[in-house]
Amino acid sequence: MKFETDKLIRFHQCDPAGIVFYPQYLVLCNETVEDWFAQAHGVDFYDLHAELHRGVPMRHLEADFLAPSVHGESLRFSLVVEKMGERSLTIRIEARHVEQLRFIARQTLVWADVSGPRAIPIEPEWRARFARFLENADGGA
Amino acid sequence: MKFETDKLIRFHQCDPAGIVFYPQYLVLCNETVEDWFAQAHGVDFYDLHAELHRGVPMRHLEADFLAPSVHGESLRFSLVVEKMGERSLTIRIEARHVEQLRFIARQTLVWADVSGPRAIPIEPEWRARFARFLENADGGA
Amino acid sequence: MKFETDKLIRFHQCDPAGIVFYPQYLVLCNETVEDWFAQAHGVDFYDLHAELHRGVPMRHLEADFLAPSVHGESLRFSLVVEKMGERSLTIRIEARHVEQLRFIARQTLVWADVSGPRAIPIEPEWRARFARFLENADGGA
Amino acid sequence: MKFETDKLIRFHQCDPAGIVFYPQYLVLCNETVEDWFAQAHGVDFYDLHAELHRGVPMRHLEADFLAPSVHGESLRFSLVVEKMGERSLTIRIEARHVEQLRFIARQTLVWADVSGPRAIPIEPEWRARFARFLENADGGA
Repeated sequence: MKFETDKLIRFHQCDPAGIVFYPQYLVLCNETVEDWFAQAHGVDFYDLHAELHRGVPMRHLEADFLAPSVHGESLRFSLVVEKMGERSLTIRIEARHVEQLRFIARQTLVWADVSGPRAIPIEPEWRARFARFLENADGGA
Repeated sequence: MKFETDKLIRFHQCDPAGIVFYPQYLVLCNETVEDWFAQAHGVDFYDLHAELHRGVPMRHLEADFLAPSVHGESLRFSLVVEKMGERSLTIRIEARHVEQLRFIARQTLVWADVSGPRAIPIEPEWRARFARFLENADGGA
Repeated sequence: MKFETDKLIRFHQCDPAGIVFYPQYLVLCNETVEDWFAQAHGVDFYDLHAELHRGVPMRHLEADFLAPSVHGESLRFSLVVEKMGERSLTIRIEARHVEQLRFIARQTLVWADVSGPRAIPIEPEWRARFARFLENADGGA
Repeated sequence: MKFETDKLIRFHQCDPAGIVFYPQYLVLCNETVEDWFAQAHGVDFYDLHAELHRGVPMRHLEADFLAPSVHGESLRFSLVVEKMGERSLTIRIEARHVEQLRFIARQTLVWADVSGPRAIPIEPEWRARFARFLENADGGA
């Protein structure tokens, strides 16, 4: 299964060249992860940190910027889990405008106890939640 | 006395119209206040919060945007204290490119105990520090 | 009539104090103006600039920050027109969480030909569109 | 040879966890590239775009986030050229606090005619400028 969320490109996310300033794609990826927790797992990102003391700091990032996006376009961000380690999660986020792939990122997030902060094993209930989005869990995303 | 600090306008602070996206001026004002604490008062803004438990949340803001600024320009930000209340401080920040006034802001900052958070009276040692930057303290800034 | 749009406070909009970094409220005001053009006037903000060569640069801003907002809260932004000048527009934007007023801004926007750029008289069709949101046009917003 | 520039971590670059929000590292990388053009090549980034019609859009990015940085720290960003292709440049940017490596990024930038925009061969004078920063040009950076 994949998670999808739509993002409207805003004026303030674009640079003097008229296109999305690339770090803004990563801000939108962060929003996508927030939306994934809230909408797919039923856990508000704020509660994840403040009440459950869990967080997902970025450890490794790879991204390809394939075509520019301009102000006013709506992009569909999709998220799948590529790999679940003992204490980390590798997700892939793709952003498309209609059928055109604009941006793709692979991110390794650490599963952390934010009161430490330190990496900890992903608990079974969270493993079950994340596993639903494993790309090949059900024969393909 | 006035405090001055120079800021180079960055690519990422400009919008598709090629000029500074106006909230970025306010981010630069925030940097100016940080620089004022660190350079004029000898107190790092981080230590102000983390060790001294003091902060200066914004209460009221007025700003005039007089002429656009573009990527690559250097602006000189100047700061004076217009008024010192019991629990607040009104500062005026002006940004100039060479002689041209681009931006002017008047900001009322609350003196806060950030562990509350709540407004508290400005302590005598801080009153003395801030008073050096009062616009009319010495017959004019 | 007033225009309303909801905004979810994002992790990246909050600072180390855990609350919205105040310039981010102004970024959200900018999004509110974009939404107003797109949803209430049927003119995408991108088209406004790129095709109609019109824009609304900020001239004057006043804002009060009444209560802090935290990550994960949904704020309702409302917009009314307080005054329509020959070449400018004064709008008031308020942000509420449930019933609590968090933030209020009064902004004077210039009606501009962005190919100039220069201020120009607001055309009759735009005057009619904006007039629908005049606060006292119908006896109160 | 490597290019170095110091960046002070600002309050607004940090998130509610008190550490640099990771896309802000990439904003600082962008500033580092701007500084490299201005200080090492004598070409202001604004002039590069507006007068020379050249730009360096991001094509591929890899980054490792090794240790968190907090508000108030000064980080030294260093830049070397790892590879110079016909129409692209792979640079590596590292950020250190004192001796601790906090962040490392490898970025493939396209050499573009921004009036197109389209990738074009790097001109000989630019090849010579960039070559000075090739990591192994002189037996090691």
